Amino acid sequence: MAEGTIEPRVLKGFRDYLPAQEKKRRDFIRKVEDSFASRGFVPIDTPAMEYAEVLLGKGGGETEKQVYRFRDHGDRDVALRFDLTVPFARFMAEHLGELYLPFKRYHIAKVWRGENTQRGRFREFYQCDCDIVGPDSAGSDFEILASMASALNALGIRDFTLNVSHRGVFNLLLERLGLAGKSVEILRAVDKLSKIGKEETRTLISAIAGEAAAENILAFISPGGDFGEVLSRMESLTGGESPGSERLKRIKEMADQSGLGGSIVLNPAITRGLDYYTGIVFETFLGALPGIGSVCSGGRYNDLASLYTKERLPGVGASIGMDRLLAALEELIPGGYGARESGVIIPCMEESLLGAAFALAERLRGRGVSAEVFTEKKKLPQQFAYAEKKGIPFAVIMGPDEAARGVYGLKDLGSRESRDGLGFEELVQILAKDGA
Amino acid sequence: MAEGTIEPRVLKGFRDYLPAQEKKRRDFIRKVEDSFASRGFVPIDTPAMEYAEVLLGKGGGETEKQVYRFRDHGDRDVALRFDLTVPFARFMAEHLGELYLPFKRYHIAKVWRGENTQRGRFREFYQCDCDIVGPDSAGSDFEILASMASALNALGIRDFTLNVSHRGVFNLLLERLGLAGKSVEILRAVDKLSKIGKEETRTLISAIAGEAAAENILAFISPGGDFGEVLSRMESLTGGESPGSERLKRIKEMADQSGLGGSIVLNPAITRGLDYYTGIVFETFLGALPGIGSVCSGGRYNDLASLYTKERLPGVGASIGMDRLLAALEELIPGGYGARESGVIIPCMEESLLGAAFALAERLRGRGVSAEVFTEKKKLPQQFAYAEKKGIPFAVIMGPDEAARGVYGLKDLGSRESRDGLGFEELVQILAKDGA
Repeated sequence: MAEGTIEPRVLKGFRDYLPAQEKKRRDFIRKVEDSFASRGFVPIDTPAMEYAEVLLGKGGGETEKQVYRFRDHGDRDVALRFDLTVPFARFMAEHLGELYLPFKRYHIAKVWRGENTQRGRFREFYQCDCDIVGPDSAGSDFEILASMASALNALGIRDFTLNVSHRGVFNLLLERLGLAGKSVEILRAVDKLSKIGKEETRTLISAIAGEAAAENILAFISPGGDFGEVLSRMESLTGGESPGSERLKRIKEMADQSGLGGSIVLNPAITRGLDYYTGIVFETFLGALPGIGSVCSGGRYNDLASLYTKERLPGVGASIGMDRLLAALEELIPGGYGARESGVIIPCMEESLLGAAFALAERLRGRGVSAEVFTEKKKLPQQFAYAEKKGIPFAVIMGPDEAARGVYGLKDLGSRESRDGLGFEELVQILAKDGA
Repeated sequence: MAEGTIEPRVLKGFRDYLPAQEKKRRDFIRKVEDSFASRGFVPIDTPAMEYAEVLLGKGGGETEKQVYRFRDHGDRDVALRFDLTVPFARFMAEHLGELYLPFKRYHIAKVWRGENTQRGRFREFYQCDCDIVGPDSAGSDFEILASMASALNALGIRDFTLNVSHRGVFNLLLERLGLAGKSVEILRAVDKLSKIGKEETRTLISAIAGEAAAENILAFISPGGDFGEVLSRMESLTGGESPGSERLKRIKEMADQSGLGGSIVLNPAITRGLDYYTGIVFETFLGALPGIGSVCSGGRYNDLASLYTKERLPGVGASIGMDRLLAALEELIPGGYGARESGVIIPCMEESLLGAAFALAERLRGRGVSAEVFTEKKKLPQQFAYAEKKGIPFAVIMGPDEAARGVYGLKDLGSRESRDGLGFEELVQILAKDGA
């Protein structure tokens, strides 16, 4: 940094996205958006900044501490959104009259939290949510699960399991054990099973509920068996069939009938810590990278917007962990996700040929080939070095000789092989075949 | 609003985007991104929030008053970005070692300004910028102009003019008139020509520069004549050929050679109020809607990042007025921009057929047809009403009879015509033909 200038730096917990990373992120968002759209989800957007009262209504302790909150020019108490769920609830309450139910929306946008960056957390990140508000039906529960499968497929991921359970069935168990009043603490303990293991979880639950109850709960949440077997065990521990167990059965039937059966696992240890879930809950794990944890998760809630309206709005939703999945894709896809570049560069051979180069680039783009003109005369190796840094695979050569003859040269910037005297159609054919 | 709840409302100057509007905006962004990418521009992203010192360095009076600025949890003096140019300058200075020049980037993102909403301004809006940093060449100037033309073409707009001038040539005129010291005031007066007319502009300039000089300036900025004629007049009033007039000539040559000549107008009244432009400046007007003003504009600057680095970084850039263009597209495109929906709905005829409906939807999506399953049993007219509200053109009917026979019905929700007993391939063919 030079003296007398301002140090160019970003705030702690914030980051720039350079082209290589930002391209991947944009590609990711497009694939997920296309996948959602092809199933009938529609996009919305809400302001980054809202009345603090609207965003913090209930004032969740941990969240409130992390929220960016300040006074605006009109001395209004405002805050930056810290998730997309609260603004969606406000949105539904405000626009209910203009919308139709079921309302299937997706929203992919930035949120801000003043998190502790020591844990590797960022203070600005994307959330990627989809929800169906209106029906409380097995079909809409399944649609959300199937949407997650579609999104993962669209990203090129086939090996994953959707781990599903039902909060209602779990609550039945707690009622039978006389522990309904301690459900929040127990849910949080159960949520730790995969992290701390069975014995530590037993100790935790015993401390809350006593040893006998802990035994029952552990029997309920222990993995093992196929969907039917696990469901039978859950039913036998909760007094037989219940609306929750029936719902799980229906979801599994639909999954089997539509080809998703193999990806759905009944896993009663999935509870989701958050207390607003009332029906199905789920988390999603990658077969090749189980250690990174759940890449998308969600569940059914009883009432989305009770803070803002007396209208009851049940729904089911999911959130895709975009940063976690982007990192996973880097590991899973050989050569790196979205690493392959396409297109050509047209080097500037002579200043006087730039107009012809722009004309050629336009013709190539008209045939679906991305084409960049190098816009000033520099030594050719410098121009090639630029193209290589950008990952452009081909250069189309048009010097005075080629221009006079109406032909082109083509240089493969990877193999360094060249071909000369190509006509325009030949050029397009080669580039189309090589995916440029 | 019910009693005891929080009023669901957004801040003044902020707005929600409902699906119909947000779809248009996302479509707009994709088209512009694809257009930029096909020319070799790459995307970047920067944080929404930065150190206030970084964003406000020079402390522009009007801007500073509008900036959202506050103390974060670590008592840092932070602000929300109010444009994409300042963060880009900081980005270039910070990452110069990791990048290559010429650096061609685009950035489409939200910015925030506490503007006076009485003038119809919004406090949160998108900016859509592209820049080429590095070369000071006619080729890169032209690339930016051609990029604007490509972006407009990609949006379906053909009838527009890129109104170009050159700040250096204008400065020559002021020097000859001994008015170099008053250039900022005069630029601002000239900038008003199209709004207040020739006579009022004459009065304004006379007050700054005297009547004789005002006459000269008005002769210079008055429209009339083709590119060559205007250029001759500019040269004769500024002492003959100059680097600026040569640059304009070269840009026009390249435009003619690459098919853009007809869209470029030499308009010496274009000066752009901002004082950081040093070379070409331009504004873009729509032939069918001249009254809405410039829809994209920009120019060449001498040094992007002098606030943060001693490295000199000349560049040329442009900004697309997204909100203005979206409004223009609504007027220009019959039926509304992006209004046509595609795809089918599969109504729920029987709860037991939902799994088969999901399977059918998956098969249709595999063939490129967007397909939404209605996920609970309701009266058919209600399901059709939902599809119509969403603008879905077709319904695929699969009741118990169709399911038993392995056939489908198809209902056109616009014309209300139905066809029965279709096989899957027939269905796909009809839907592909109708663009569903």
